[in-house]
Amino acid sequence: VTASERLVVIGGDAAGMSAASTAKKLRGDALDVVALERGDWTSYSACGIPYWVAGDIGSVHDLVARSAHEHRDMGIGVRLRTEAVEIDLDSGHVQTSAGERIGFDQLMIATGAEPIRPDLPGIDAEGILGIQTLGDGERFLAQLTGRRKPRSAVVVGGGYIGVEMAEACVRRGLRTTLVDMAVQPMRSLDPELGAQVADAMRGMGIDVRTQVGVHEFLADDSGAVRAVVTDSGELPADVVVLALGVRPRSEVARQAGLRVGISGGLRTSADMSCDGHVGIWAAGDVVESWDRLRQKWVHVPLGTHANKQGRIAGLGIAGERARFQGVLGTAVTKVCDLEIARTGLSEADAAAEGIEVVAATIETTTRAGYYPGATTMTVKMVADRRTRRMLGAQIVGREGAAHRIDTCAMALWNPTTVDELVLTDLAYAPPFSSVWDPVQVAARAVAAALD
Amino acid sequence: VTASERLVVIGGDAAGMSAASTAKKLRGDALDVVALERGDWTSYSACGIPYWVAGDIGSVHDLVARSAHEHRDMGIGVRLRTEAVEIDLDSGHVQTSAGERIGFDQLMIATGAEPIRPDLPGIDAEGILGIQTLGDGERFLAQLTGRRKPRSAVVVGGGYIGVEMAEACVRRGLRTTLVDMAVQPMRSLDPELGAQVADAMRGMGIDVRTQVGVHEFLADDSGAVRAVVTDSGELPADVVVLALGVRPRSEVARQAGLRVGISGGLRTSADMSCDGHVGIWAAGDVVESWDRLRQKWVHVPLGTHANKQGRIAGLGIAGERARFQGVLGTAVTKVCDLEIARTGLSEADAAAEGIEVVAATIETTTRAGYYPGATTMTVKMVADRRTRRMLGAQIVGREGAAHRIDTCAMALWNPTTVDELVLTDLAYAPPFSSVWDPVQVAARAVAAALD
Repeated sequence: VTASERLVVIGGDAAGMSAASTAKKLRGDALDVVALERGDWTSYSACGIPYWVAGDIGSVHDLVARSAHEHRDMGIGVRLRTEAVEIDLDSGHVQTSAGERIGFDQLMIATGAEPIRPDLPGIDAEGILGIQTLGDGERFLAQLTGRRKPRSAVVVGGGYIGVEMAEACVRRGLRTTLVDMAVQPMRSLDPELGAQVADAMRGMGIDVRTQVGVHEFLADDSGAVRAVVTDSGELPADVVVLALGVRPRSEVARQAGLRVGISGGLRTSADMSCDGHVGIWAAGDVVESWDRLRQKWVHVPLGTHANKQGRIAGLGIAGERARFQGVLGTAVTKVCDLEIARTGLSEADAAAEGIEVVAATIETTTRAGYYPGATTMTVKMVADRRTRRMLGAQIVGREGAAHRIDTCAMALWNPTTVDELVLTDLAYAPPFSSVWDPVQVAARAVAAALD
Repeated sequence: VTASERLVVIGGDAAGMSAASTAKKLRGDALDVVALERGDWTSYSACGIPYWVAGDIGSVHDLVARSAHEHRDMGIGVRLRTEAVEIDLDSGHVQTSAGERIGFDQLMIATGAEPIRPDLPGIDAEGILGIQTLGDGERFLAQLTGRRKPRSAVVVGGGYIGVEMAEACVRRGLRTTLVDMAVQPMRSLDPELGAQVADAMRGMGIDVRTQVGVHEFLADDSGAVRAVVTDSGELPADVVVLALGVRPRSEVARQAGLRVGISGGLRTSADMSCDGHVGIWAAGDVVESWDRLRQKWVHVPLGTHANKQGRIAGLGIAGERARFQGVLGTAVTKVCDLEIARTGLSEADAAAEGIEVVAATIETTTRAGYYPGATTMTVKMVADRRTRRMLGAQIVGREGAAHRIDTCAMALWNPTTVDELVLTDLAYAPPFSSVWDPVQVAARAVAAALD
C-alpha cells in the first residue's frame, strides 16, 4: 500500500503526538506520518518532572505515556534526536538536522516552548538549568548524584515550576533558596493567597526571598556555577534552576513565514490551522490560545491544552471538523500538602484589563466543621461589578481545594453570576463539605459585597 | 419597641431557622419571630447523624450549628418540644401542642420529613428506628450502650442513609445485614456502579442481601425486636434501622388547605411562598422542588436544599425578592473510603422519563498514573442522543471522586454538550488528575458512542 498523503509532525510530545495518533487512527494506511523529535522521548509528561526529580517517581520511563517504539507499532515513523531546521511552505518540505529533506502534504508544528534564559553575566556556567524536557530532568538528576554532590540550590522565579522545583530541591536535601522579583511567589494568585504559599514553602525549610532581582551568576575554576549575585546578597548555589517562564519555540516556523502573536506564539484558527495556511497546523506550547474571558490571544503553555489542541489538529488533518474552545487560565499545583488552584481572572488580572470587579476572600472548612480531619481552606472570588458575573477564583488549602477549582472553571465556561452560583446544586455530605460549599460561601460573600 | 409584624416558624432545623435568621437579620425589631420545634434541638446537621452514631463525632452538640439559646440571643423566640397541631390560615393563627394559639402575619412551614414505616406485622416492636432527627440518633446510641447490649443489626433499605447506617453499625461491632428490594444498594446509581458499592460494603463485613423483601418483625417477650423475617430467611436483629426513605411531614399544612404535590410535599413558587397564599412560606424536606432536568416537581429531602430554600424564604419574608433555582439530583456519600457521587439523570432515570440517551462508563486513575497513590475511579456519563447534551454522571472511586461530581453538576446547570465538556479548561497537575480529567475521559467516551 502506498500512502496517498504524508504528514510531517515537528515535535514528539503531547501536542504533536496527539495530532499524529488521532490522524493516523482515522486515516490509517492512507496517511504516512513522519514525526521528528529533537530529544530522546515522545509523549512524555513534562508536568511530572518536578515529582520525578524529587524522588516520587521511580524511572524516567514512568513519565513516558507512549514511547517511540509504541508509536512506530501504530505506524508512525518517529525519528528521535532529529530537529527541523527549516520549513519550506511553498514546496512543502522540511529540512532536518540530519541533513534530510522531507516532503509533506500536511505539516503539524508542535515545537513547544523553551525556558527563558536571562541575558546575565555567567548565565552559561555549568549547572544552570531550565526544566522543560525529560533531558533537563536527567541533567538535574545527574548533578544530584554526580561526583560533585551539590549542597545548595537557588531557584530563580516563583511560578508553578519554580515552586515545584524548590520543593524537589529541598526534598533532595539541598539548602534551597527561591528568589523572585515579585512581592510573593506564585504571582498568578493575589497577594493574600500567595502569602500562604510562601508560608508553606518556608515551613518546608525553603528560603523564600521576594522582591529580589538577580544580577550575575558566579562560577568556580571548572566553570561550574557556585553562587548567584542578587539584590539580597550573594547566595551559594551548586545548582541553579531557571524558572522564569518559557517562550514559544517558534523561530523556524516564523522564518517560514507563519504568523506569530505578541508572545511569539503561532497564531492559529480555532481548528488549529495556522492563519492563512491550508494543511499547516500547530498546537501546544508553541501557539497562542484564545482567552475566553479576556477575549484576546494569550500564551498558556500547559500540557492540558497541548493534548486537547493536538487532538483537534489531528481531527482536522484527517478531514474532520473540530474547534478548540479557548482557555480560562485554570491551573493547579501543590506545595507539600497545600493545594493551590486558580481559574479565570485574579483581582490583579482584572485591574490590568481595566475590568471593574468586586472581590471577597473567605475562610471555611474542607469538611463539615464537626467531621474528623476538617481543615481550613481559603477561597477568593472575583466578579464583574456591573454584570455580577463570576470572573475568577483562587483556592488555597488542604484536601479538596484543588478539585473545587473545576466547579469555578465550569461556572466561568458558561457565564454565571455569583447570585446564581450561590444556588447551584453542588454535592454535600459531611465528609466532603460544609453544607454551603466553600465555593458558594465565597460567591455569597462577593454577592454581599456587590450589594 | 413593639414589633409591627409577627412571623411564626414551624420547624427549627435548617430550612426554618435559615428563614428565621435571614428575616430577623434584615428586619430587626420590626419583626417578632416565634419558632416552634417539636424536638430538643435547632439548626442541626441530620446528615451528620450516621457519623455521630458510628463514633466519629464526640458529642451531639457538635452537630448543632446554632442552639436554641444562640437563636434566642439573636432575638428569635424558640420554643422547643412544641408542635403546631393546627394552622388557621383565614384568621392567621397556629394552635400548638402546648395548647397555645399564636397569631401570625407571616408563616414559615418547615416541618421536614419523617422516615417511612412500612405497615408490616411487628413494626411497632421496640428497637425499630428511623434515623431522621438527633432524637433518633440518641435513641440508637442509647440502645448500643444500654443494658441489653445489641449484637446484631438489620438495615432495611439501601439508599444513602441505609448505606451510611450499615457502616455505622458494623463499625460499632454489630453483625450487620442490609436488605434491599432492588438488585443493588444505592439504586440512584446504575447497576454497574452500585455493584462496586455493594462490594465495598461486603469488604467491610456487611452482609448485603439484594432483591430481598421484608415480611415481618419478630419481638421477644419484652416487646423488643429480635429478628426480621425476609425472603432470605429470618435474620437476627437486636436493632433495626428503617431506611426506606422519608415522606414530607405536610399533614397539618394540608389540613389547613395548602396545596401538595404527588409526593405529599408542599407546592411553592420559586420564591418559596405556598401556591396561592401571600405571606405563607415553606422550605426544606416538606416541599417539592423543581427538577431542572426532568422539568417537573420532585421530592429531594437534602440539607443543602433546605438551607438554600430557607434563606430564599427568609429574604422573601423580609420583602426582598429571591428565587430558588431548582435541583439537579446531586448527591454524595462514602462507604469506608469509597466515594460515591451522582448528579442529573442515570440511565435508568432517563429511561423512566422516556428520554433517549447514550451512556458510557470509563475507568481511569485519580492522579496521573505514574504519581504515587493513584487509584482507580469509575465514571459513568449519560447524554441525550439527539442534542448530545450531558444529562448526568455517576462517579465511584477513592480520593477526589466526590468533588469531581460538582464539575458535572455545573455542566448540567448550564446545558453543555459532551463535545464541549471534553474541551473545557479543567485543572491538571499530576498529583490531582490524569492530563485528560476523568470527567473529560468519560465525556469523550460518550461522544464516541454517539458518533
